[in-house]
Amino acid sequence: MSLTGSAAIDVARSASLASRRLATLSNAARNEALTALHRALDVNREVILAANARDLEAANRAADNGDLSHSVIKRLDLSRPGKYDDMLEGILSVRDLEDPVGKVTLRTLLDDGLTLERVSCPIGVLLIIFEARPEVIANIAALAIKSGNAAILKGGKESIESFETIAKVVSEAVAGSQVPVASVQLVKTRDAVSSLLAQDSLIDLVIPRGSNELVRFVKDNTKIPVLGHADGLCSAYIHSDANTETAMKVIVDSKTDYPAACNSLETLLVHEDILESVFPVVATALLDKGVSLRCDATSKAALTKALPAEKTAHLQLATESDYDTEFLDLVLAVKTVPSANSSIAAVEAAIAHINSHSSKHTDIILTESQEVANMFMSGIDSAGVFWNASSRFADGMRFGFGTEVGISTNKIHSRGPVGLEGLTIYKYLIRGNGHRAADYHDGAGGRKYLHTNLPLSQ
Amino acid sequence: MSLTGSAAIDVARSASLASRRLATLSNAARNEALTALHRALDVNREVILAANARDLEAANRAADNGDLSHSVIKRLDLSRPGKYDDMLEGILSVRDLEDPVGKVTLRTLLDDGLTLERVSCPIGVLLIIFEARPEVIANIAALAIKSGNAAILKGGKESIESFETIAKVVSEAVAGSQVPVASVQLVKTRDAVSSLLAQDSLIDLVIPRGSNELVRFVKDNTKIPVLGHADGLCSAYIHSDANTETAMKVIVDSKTDYPAACNSLETLLVHEDILESVFPVVATALLDKGVSLRCDATSKAALTKALPAEKTAHLQLATESDYDTEFLDLVLAVKTVPSANSSIAAVEAAIAHINSHSSKHTDIILTESQEVANMFMSGIDSAGVFWNASSRFADGMRFGFGTEVGISTNKIHSRGPVGLEGLTIYKYLIRGNGHRAADYHDGAGGRKYLHTNLPLSQ
Repeated sequence: MSLTGSAAIDVARSASLASRRLATLSNAARNEALTALHRALDVNREVILAANARDLEAANRAADNGDLSHSVIKRLDLSRPGKYDDMLEGILSVRDLEDPVGKVTLRTLLDDGLTLERVSCPIGVLLIIFEARPEVIANIAALAIKSGNAAILKGGKESIESFETIAKVVSEAVAGSQVPVASVQLVKTRDAVSSLLAQDSLIDLVIPRGSNELVRFVKDNTKIPVLGHADGLCSAYIHSDANTETAMKVIVDSKTDYPAACNSLETLLVHEDILESVFPVVATALLDKGVSLRCDATSKAALTKALPAEKTAHLQLATESDYDTEFLDLVLAVKTVPSANSSIAAVEAAIAHINSHSSKHTDIILTESQEVANMFMSGIDSAGVFWNASSRFADGMRFGFGTEVGISTNKIHSRGPVGLEGLTIYKYLIRGNGHRAADYHDGAGGRKYLHTNLPLSQ
Repeated sequence: MSLTGSAAIDVARSASLASRRLATLSNAARNEALTALHRALDVNREVILAANARDLEAANRAADNGDLSHSVIKRLDLSRPGKYDDMLEGILSVRDLEDPVGKVTLRTLLDDGLTLERVSCPIGVLLIIFEARPEVIANIAALAIKSGNAAILKGGKESIESFETIAKVVSEAVAGSQVPVASVQLVKTRDAVSSLLAQDSLIDLVIPRGSNELVRFVKDNTKIPVLGHADGLCSAYIHSDANTETAMKVIVDSKTDYPAACNSLETLLVHEDILESVFPVVATALLDKGVSLRCDATSKAALTKALPAEKTAHLQLATESDYDTEFLDLVLAVKTVPSANSSIAAVEAAIAHINSHSSKHTDIILTESQEVANMFMSGIDSAGVFWNASSRFADGMRFGFGTEVGISTNKIHSRGPVGLEGLTIYKYLIRGNGHRAADYHDGAGGRKYLHTNLPLSQ
């Protein structure tokens, strides 16, 4: 569907209407739609892969002309071994997750015959903007239906053929279920984005899935709440009492397990007292893995003294901007934390650096002291704060959420890896029998509220 | 403090720094500050009331000149019987609420020695913008300190003298506690608002407390999330099977208990089949309370037929805009819901009207059918949906929250009456022992996650 401004309103309005019906469907009805979606994508594998092949052909031509990066082609390719099956399997795993809708999280007896309940419910209409990966369509359609939200999906131009074919299959599958067809709508022109981002009275949440630039563009151009993160600038602090082996293992994993990921390490803070003990061991392991170190003068001097010349030949001096850079590569900025007057002062300095430079994603500490770890964990203002464990654990699947909508660095609603729960909100239900607020006013004869907690399950 | 743009950044930055220390304080330390705050406001009652009297004098002059509404004076006056004591008492009740910080809401054993916890924590920095009521300063300072958030307060010009004096007392009280002084900052010039609303990297949440215009202005002029509601357009639907007495009691209370409140009724939908039975009883009770009814042609005709002429002489015909108007007065828009083919179709029509006209605050249904009530409660997209109970129950104190930050019509984070919980978010903590993500990759030798739920309390 190609969109003008008024068409964007129509899409948003029909999604909003569909979302209201979707919100009333049972988990069984939503699950049936997911089963149908799975079957349809399975049956139509050949036609979808053929469309994907046409996208790949165009992308290869564009890459050969230098108009497209080769990394996009990898993300675009649905025919890579296991990828299509993973996509299908993903729909079934989402289907089999616990129903996130209708959970009672508070139940209070306000007075005889007057009960208050807080019940989880869908948010409403989600707008998902993604780039090359065509399997995101199936993934997001499944998450939206499971959580009772309508979804408007906007894909990138590189995946246009895959996108159109999958869209058709998804629509046909949904049409055969109780889920309204307008619950999953796919739009494609680039113009559509601005028009959709303006629909803040009809669209409740935007989820951009793609580059930092995409996320930043979306955040800068809408009044709709945005779930996600532009940057993943994760830091580690090695305290003076850190265990050498633990520090080495955790830092190397955080930096090198998958350097392009948002939960990879970008800045290393090292306590001054261990510059010539723990740090050279950690640095050697990093250098051996091909990591370039950008050190402040103090840590560079320490390494130069502690390590053989051939190891330290390529050390670089860090600039101030290195401590604000998400390298997404085998590069690590290193900074010394002065030992100051006390152990506490050093931890405070590390916390202060991280709170003013990190992107509030995930930060870690290496220490043997529970007191120091607790101080760090309460002082760091980030979605994840880990003690003696790799920053790479910041991930919905690793957390056991079964699925991940994204990782949020927001300060409200959802933070860190977001599972299905992040696609729900709640409403307050009161059941009475002609109850009036006026009967509870102060003064003689005014009734008193009971405010008795009731069991959540009935 | 008078603010230019750069001063606004300084205020926001110092609040942000203070918030990080505040976040690490124990509940006992935060409570001690609240006790000190209570004591200081008690001790300084005379000087504060003297300052308030100067504000009142100026306000009375302005009102006499027609420059200020008389209703502002009532809100401004701290010397009204009980008001000052209520303010003091409010600080102690907030102090004695359960600590909203540090609650563990998820605990998972990821693998041997590797645990994940989700723990509630403060959001960070709140910006509270309010109008005349000077007691809001004490109220919000207490809420912020209790929840571990720093607060920047911006008051209205009418309360300038009260504000300055209370600000001084609050600062001195906080200075004697472990809570950093910059945790509660008070700014006053009107220019400060725009500068502060621009600090979206330092301020995490804005809470406007005042008129619809104030809320709308704030929402339109910031990228910081805003907690609150501009409108409270609440609707009621009387279904065909409603009990007459119940409908009459609930509708009259919803409309007349306090017409200027956001949780008061503004639109009444009536099922066609009861236009000449239940409706005239409800309408008579409303008319007897002085409510002006703005009816559609069908409901007007029904009343004219059912009631004596002197009752119906002042009925007005509703215009379309009446169904989008928050009257905040003894005026009610009435609309007929056609009986259509089925009872279900009528409920659906009522739901559709409300979802497209209401402000997602609180909507109610009058029916004797649990099935119809459930349909309404799941279909209505509002923070509160009540069955056979007054819309006036939408209130944090009535809900038993102990305090209320405001009522939110947002679709994410907090919805409905917001208690202390709405001023918190959570972070994920992992405690490990040198754990690496690389050890869990697919393939031979890869470790598997346990993902075992652990008890929340330890």
